[in-house]
Amino acid sequence: LIAEEVFVPRRESGVLRGLRVVVTAGPTREKIDPVRFISNRSSGKMGYAVAAAAREAGADVMLISGPVQIPVPLGVERLEVESAEQMLAAVQTALAGSGAVGNADILIAAAAVSDYRMIEIAPQKIKKTSDTMTLALMRAPDVLGTVSRLPSRPFLVGFAAETEHVERNALAKLAGKNLDMIAANRVGEGLAFDRDDNALTVYWRDGKRELAFNSKAALARQLVEVIAERFHARAGA
Amino acid sequence: LIAEEVFVPRRESGVLRGLRVVVTAGPTREKIDPVRFISNRSSGKMGYAVAAAAREAGADVMLISGPVQIPVPLGVERLEVESAEQMLAAVQTALAGSGAVGNADILIAAAAVSDYRMIEIAPQKIKKTSDTMTLALMRAPDVLGTVSRLPSRPFLVGFAAETEHVERNALAKLAGKNLDMIAANRVGEGLAFDRDDNALTVYWRDGKRELAFNSKAALARQLVEVIAERFHARAGA
Repeated sequence: LIAEEVFVPRRESGVLRGLRVVVTAGPTREKIDPVRFISNRSSGKMGYAVAAAAREAGADVMLISGPVQIPVPLGVERLEVESAEQMLAAVQTALAGSGAVGNADILIAAAAVSDYRMIEIAPQKIKKTSDTMTLALMRAPDVLGTVSRLPSRPFLVGFAAETEHVERNALAKLAGKNLDMIAANRVGEGLAFDRDDNALTVYWRDGKRELAFNSKAALARQLVEVIAERFHARAGA
Repeated sequence: LIAEEVFVPRRESGVLRGLRVVVTAGPTREKIDPVRFISNRSSGKMGYAVAAAAREAGADVMLISGPVQIPVPLGVERLEVESAEQMLAAVQTALAGSGAVGNADILIAAAAVSDYRMIEIAPQKIKKTSDTMTLALMRAPDVLGTVSRLPSRPFLVGFAAETEHVERNALAKLAGKNLDMIAANRVGEGLAFDRDDNALTVYWRDGKRELAFNSKAALARQLVEVIAERFHARAGA
């Protein structure tokens, strides 16, 4: 309790004080068989930093995380999932639940949820008997798209990690999924993934904000400031 | 230097003293595009424990590791790789090199090397425009098979992680890849992966040894004892 008072001092005074925030983070894994899977390079660092920053800003925070090796930020509740399907179920349960984030005010979707999953998961390890193999995939559940169609939806913040056409793809995702905000960044060799620093451009319907190259911890705090600003602008409108 | 004397005391007296050992560990990742990849559930813990145990037993050890989050064992040299192709190249370089493990005596292949890789890696992130996606894969380089065909090959120890027919599959791999020994275990939900304990059955041409359920550190030491016994039996034959 003393530790919490020392490290999370803004509980009663932060820009998100009294709000309930769900943050998703990390990659998801889609099984091919009991041993192999398809995943992506998300390290989870940005999502964990955002969860910590939201907590510092006074929110009650639930972090729904794919498989990563990062300690839970102090004062944050974490739920671990593996697949896109599990992540959607966890988000729906958290939003519908009577817990600390039930009827959440804000969902910050920093997880890199798999877009595709196997049509059929092999029940046993596939033996390497043939020279080639074909994997048939179908779309995985769309976490943000599903939440966005809820009758009573939270303020929705998405992320777009793009290797090219960053602004165009981010704006398409903002409109296509009916988000309130999207934080976009360029990814690729030596950029963003597994690193402790990054740069973001945040877009909303009628504005944008550049968050210059910085540590993910500092970027997360700046992002939380922008989210709080837009959330309160919308709530006051 | 003092730390090394304290923690690696058997350098001059262990069962592998004076020998050069290469250990591979962890999964490999095969890129689908700059963001997505295919991998497997290997945690790398067994391979790292074997590298530590081989060093404790007096060997010069090079650890060639896929992407994992485990500290390098004291006194062990580590080389990090990502794909099966990179792992094969690193093993070939280590075995051919003039370094500490050049002309190695023993290769312990604990890595879960990908069996298949993409025929073509997409140069940009694949957009999720279609409802289905097909991935066309081809066999990845066979690290153990390639080393086994070298004119001057080291004593070869493989691993077999199987969800069913463990003994049959292990013996087929021992013969098929012309290994000197193979350590087999059953994997699946709640077994082996990401755990700190395991059980192994070690097979060679005319014998086997059961290593009962134990911590991976203890198992690794027992495995190194069996490897040393078989290596010296073969060398003395």
